Amino acid sequence: MHILVTNDDGVHAPGLLALAQAVKKIADKVTILAPDHNWSASGHVKTLHRPLRVEKTLLEDGTSAWASDGAPSDCVALAQLGFIPEKIDLVVSGINPNANIGHDVTYSGTVTAAMEAAIWGIPGVAVSLDRPEDHTGLIDYGPAAEAARRVINWLWQQDGLPEDMVLNVNVPYGPLEEMKGFRITRQGLRIYRDELVRRLDPRGKPYYWIGGDTPIGVEEPGTDYGALLSGFVSITPLQLDLTSHGMKHWLETRDFEGGFSVSEN
Amino acid sequence: MHILVTNDDGVHAPGLLALAQAVKKIADKVTILAPDHNWSASGHVKTLHRPLRVEKTLLEDGTSAWASDGAPSDCVALAQLGFIPEKIDLVVSGINPNANIGHDVTYSGTVTAAMEAAIWGIPGVAVSLDRPEDHTGLIDYGPAAEAARRVINWLWQQDGLPEDMVLNVNVPYGPLEEMKGFRITRQGLRIYRDELVRRLDPRGKPYYWIGGDTPIGVEEPGTDYGALLSGFVSITPLQLDLTSHGMKHWLETRDFEGGFSVSEN
Repeated sequence: MHILVTNDDGVHAPGLLALAQAVKKIADKVTILAPDHNWSASGHVKTLHRPLRVEKTLLEDGTSAWASDGAPSDCVALAQLGFIPEKIDLVVSGINPNANIGHDVTYSGTVTAAMEAAIWGIPGVAVSLDRPEDHTGLIDYGPAAEAARRVINWLWQQDGLPEDMVLNVNVPYGPLEEMKGFRITRQGLRIYRDELVRRLDPRGKPYYWIGGDTPIGVEEPGTDYGALLSGFVSITPLQLDLTSHGMKHWLETRDFEGGFSVSEN
Repeated sequence: MHILVTNDDGVHAPGLLALAQAVKKIADKVTILAPDHNWSASGHVKTLHRPLRVEKTLLEDGTSAWASDGAPSDCVALAQLGFIPEKIDLVVSGINPNANIGHDVTYSGTVTAAMEAAIWGIPGVAVSLDRPEDHTGLIDYGPAAEAARRVINWLWQQDGLPEDMVLNVNVPYGPLEEMKGFRITRQGLRIYRDELVRRLDPRGKPYYWIGGDTPIGVEEPGTDYGALLSGFVSITPLQLDLTSHGMKHWLETRDFEGGFSVSEN
């Protein structure tokens, strides 16, 4: 198994190092190609309007890695388009220092890197750590990396692993022994608590920060947020088809001036 | 009805002007807040790491507008967070000079602006023009703007319009009379034909372009791509919940070392 490791916090982020070290235990080969700077909340990017650079770099433990000035999804595309000549079997993205749950998934560079993998027909796994808001100091990524390793190891042993499988894995913060287990979940609802902060620059001109409190979630059983709250590792399978079949039905049952012609299926 | 108009090509793009002029005919008030530069293929962005600027500007027809250095989704967030004090009833994004179909929707700034609206509980409509690859010269956005006006006008007259309704509207290129009608569709599959182009800079160092041919689609009845090919305006309702229930079932029926604890529902 050849695993590509990327992230959205930059190639030198400690979360990536922990993840790369964990997957090395189960992969025949691990390649690291990640952004050279932080792309958090950058969404799904395809950089077409400018060229991309890729430089060799060394991680803290001496592992060699590639750093690109592209977005996380660009890194996956670069690898798949031939920058990495060897066939890639799985893409792993993370470990993000904050949970990616609910609506976060469309904003998240960590998750969109896994989605980009699926577009190329490679399973993608995004790994995020649900670090408590009040946690300060060094973050221990070890337990989350081990949880991710177990999920990936299990996944790889399955027959008929779908090529466009995207797993959004969120791990509670704390020792592995204290986790309750693993749960397959659905995407929950985020509650954003953004506030607009208006300030004046030294020249008296206004500028605006999107500030406010960190987002919370709607506590519902079966969701990513619900699983984390109960101490479980949350595993949410995601898809690239965003069609709302509920809304499609709603639209199809109504009359449109001039006539909607309803699709064949 | 108070409509917010935005886009991903920049506030001075002709597609935005055509769309704003069309929706003025049906709205009580139209506010324009759009990026000050092109954000194509930028995905769903929330700019938290730097402040945002918003400047007054005038469109070609003398309409006043706001230009921000944020992404399309930032423009929607800024408006909704209070930069635009009046309540917004609907967000319209476009007109993009190329179709946004299949997997494009997660990359598309045009579509993610409409998705951002839905996160704030406001219906969002993304409008894109399926301009033929070989079309050169001035683009006529008039027919697409009129098609969008009809869809929005119809939508607004419906009882119980879902607050998180996201419509991805793609319009064929050409006169309105030649369009076959409107079709409610599902998201199809894109086929990307990207190629990696490696070049050397004047100092002999390599750089990489994501190049190749423009994407095509898988021709299937009922899809966005299928509708466009048949000459119909495609209307695809999208959702923010990316859970793959098919994959969820696949995962739940398999055994996990240590045991996945399957979610309650």
